[in-house]
Amino acid sequence: MKLELKTNTQNLLELLQANKKLIDQTILDFLPKSSETQEIEVLYDMMRDYPSRGGKGLRGSLCLLWCELFSGRKSSAIITASALELFQNWILIHDDIEDASEMRRGLPALHKKFGVELAINAGDALHGKMWELLLTNRRTVANDTTLDILLEFARMLNETTEGQQMELAWNSSNNWEIQESDYLLMVTKKAAWYTCISPCRLGMILSATNRGSVFSEKMDKIIEFGTNSGIAFQIIDDVLNLTADESKYGKEILGDLYEGKRTLILIHLLRNLEPGQRKKVVEALSKPRHLKNNQEMQWIFGLMKEKKSIDYARRVATKHSDVAMKIFEDVSLEQSRLRPREYEQTKYLLKYLTSRDY
Amino acid sequence: MKLELKTNTQNLLELLQANKKLIDQTILDFLPKSSETQEIEVLYDMMRDYPSRGGKGLRGSLCLLWCELFSGRKSSAIITASALELFQNWILIHDDIEDASEMRRGLPALHKKFGVELAINAGDALHGKMWELLLTNRRTVANDTTLDILLEFARMLNETTEGQQMELAWNSSNNWEIQESDYLLMVTKKAAWYTCISPCRLGMILSATNRGSVFSEKMDKIIEFGTNSGIAFQIIDDVLNLTADESKYGKEILGDLYEGKRTLILIHLLRNLEPGQRKKVVEALSKPRHLKNNQEMQWIFGLMKEKKSIDYARRVATKHSDVAMKIFEDVSLEQSRLRPREYEQTKYLLKYLTSRDY
Repeated sequence: MKLELKTNTQNLLELLQANKKLIDQTILDFLPKSSETQEIEVLYDMMRDYPSRGGKGLRGSLCLLWCELFSGRKSSAIITASALELFQNWILIHDDIEDASEMRRGLPALHKKFGVELAINAGDALHGKMWELLLTNRRTVANDTTLDILLEFARMLNETTEGQQMELAWNSSNNWEIQESDYLLMVTKKAAWYTCISPCRLGMILSATNRGSVFSEKMDKIIEFGTNSGIAFQIIDDVLNLTADESKYGKEILGDLYEGKRTLILIHLLRNLEPGQRKKVVEALSKPRHLKNNQEMQWIFGLMKEKKSIDYARRVATKHSDVAMKIFEDVSLEQSRLRPREYEQTKYLLKYLTSRDY
Repeated sequence: MKLELKTNTQNLLELLQANKKLIDQTILDFLPKSSETQEIEVLYDMMRDYPSRGGKGLRGSLCLLWCELFSGRKSSAIITASALELFQNWILIHDDIEDASEMRRGLPALHKKFGVELAINAGDALHGKMWELLLTNRRTVANDTTLDILLEFARMLNETTEGQQMELAWNSSNNWEIQESDYLLMVTKKAAWYTCISPCRLGMILSATNRGSVFSEKMDKIIEFGTNSGIAFQIIDDVLNLTADESKYGKEILGDLYEGKRTLILIHLLRNLEPGQRKKVVEALSKPRHLKNNQEMQWIFGLMKEKKSIDYARRVATKHSDVAMKIFEDVSLEQSRLRPREYEQTKYLLKYLTSRDY
């Protein structure tokens, strides 16, 4: 098996872009465009809004790569990869309301443009379209596969809403006694499932791998793999919220502090402050968003640097990312029909997910 | 064909109650109950809240009856009938937020108990459970039938969110120039699809009726039938919002006026007022909810009685209900294997839907 493998950041970004283009086209061709009823046309515009805003399409690409890695055809996974991106889009519409986020991918959040009422409904409409798109799998794959894919989406949604519930409940009860283990459970549910676990499992379902006990063992292994890589991904996301270049990042810098997000960085900070200072930080973070000011948030950010909380979070991310990589190698190398190019690309994507700078 | 047919209101209500009991049990057995994580247990409680509040289960019963009517087995339609009720439950959680409703089935709306953020997420979680429940159809019916049912749910959700969008857009743009045809389109989408059209079509999909061109003609006919009966149902609902006994009705009386709902009754009123008075009514209805007072709302209600707007709406409801009944008779009597008891029960249910007093 001799192949010149030349994956590097540039090649990876080109691959992601090419996949994203296919996915965007699938989504925008599928979503309704025009209606004779003016109000409904506004709904269609709202549904097309987030999907038209760019983004990297990481989850879709992960699904495509994983399918190819195990000898599946990319073409048979495009629908499902697109539905993963639709999942992200509709749930972000609702998340942005729930978290009172103001920006999304460099533009005002949907509810800031159209109001909360219309945005909740548009999220529901887009959610429905996700299932409808998945049902078109019938045309190209076996009924059983179509149904297995739908079941994986249901599982993914259960986990994501449970994770979101945990975080929202901490906020609404003003609970700052969060342990690292609470954070890891929340992030596994809220981020790892839809960012890593399900995209890879879906790729696997769509691959040419035979069903049976080996398949089902692999599907379990992917949960372990995706939990670790998803945690690493989310920690890096939290780090970037503090340190990224805003023009690339597309969200507010320090936005997590304004939203009072319980990140690993903050948990580390709170447990390393003396009681008086801890009390002051908690007070500042507990204020309603519109009463927070930049000076206070910068002060907390300064404390995070001083207490090396960001470095700590990066180290935890690396630890999880290393575990994920090890599982990935085990799972993929134990099979005979592995494709070396996709193997290298996937490894590179995993590295990128957990060490990107925006 | 000699059968003693004894359907009357009492028998019908008993049938509805028996169906509702089966459906409730299916839903509450299916929804998760306990979690080691306290926050997640709160989510589960929220998901079980609306489904535990009673209600009549009309949509589920309609699906069961329609399935039996065309020689299907009730047992094979219970999952789908239960998912219809789940649909209503999750979408009402979101609707109550979007419409700023305060009460639901005699108790505070979910977002009044837990806050808007948690309630949006709980609605999404329950929405996911609806699809997951529908996927359990795999165990008892053919894969193709399972997938056809899912597709009908996707269609139903498209229509419902489009109808909701129309109504919300009228509210948010303070648009009072609504014509009767606008109202009828909105109500068809927002209410008729999930109350009548899809329940009957789903019953049909689950029945023993053979596929093919006759089946597909019947499925089209049901859209016409369900549009007419659904419109009649919703108009009666709007009438009851003004005239019902609050203890039976479970929602706020005059709540639609507080919410500024564009009902057929209001449309009739507005077109029968002289300009000066019309302006005053529109001004009163345009105020934000918390600035409205009972005296003004009672005054508008008085005008509706004076201008016979409620009588007018009842007449339009009757007209649509008669058309629906005619189509129902055509569709059911043209088949050979009709079951006379279910035929009579369904007719009685249709009459009840469009002439109930709560």
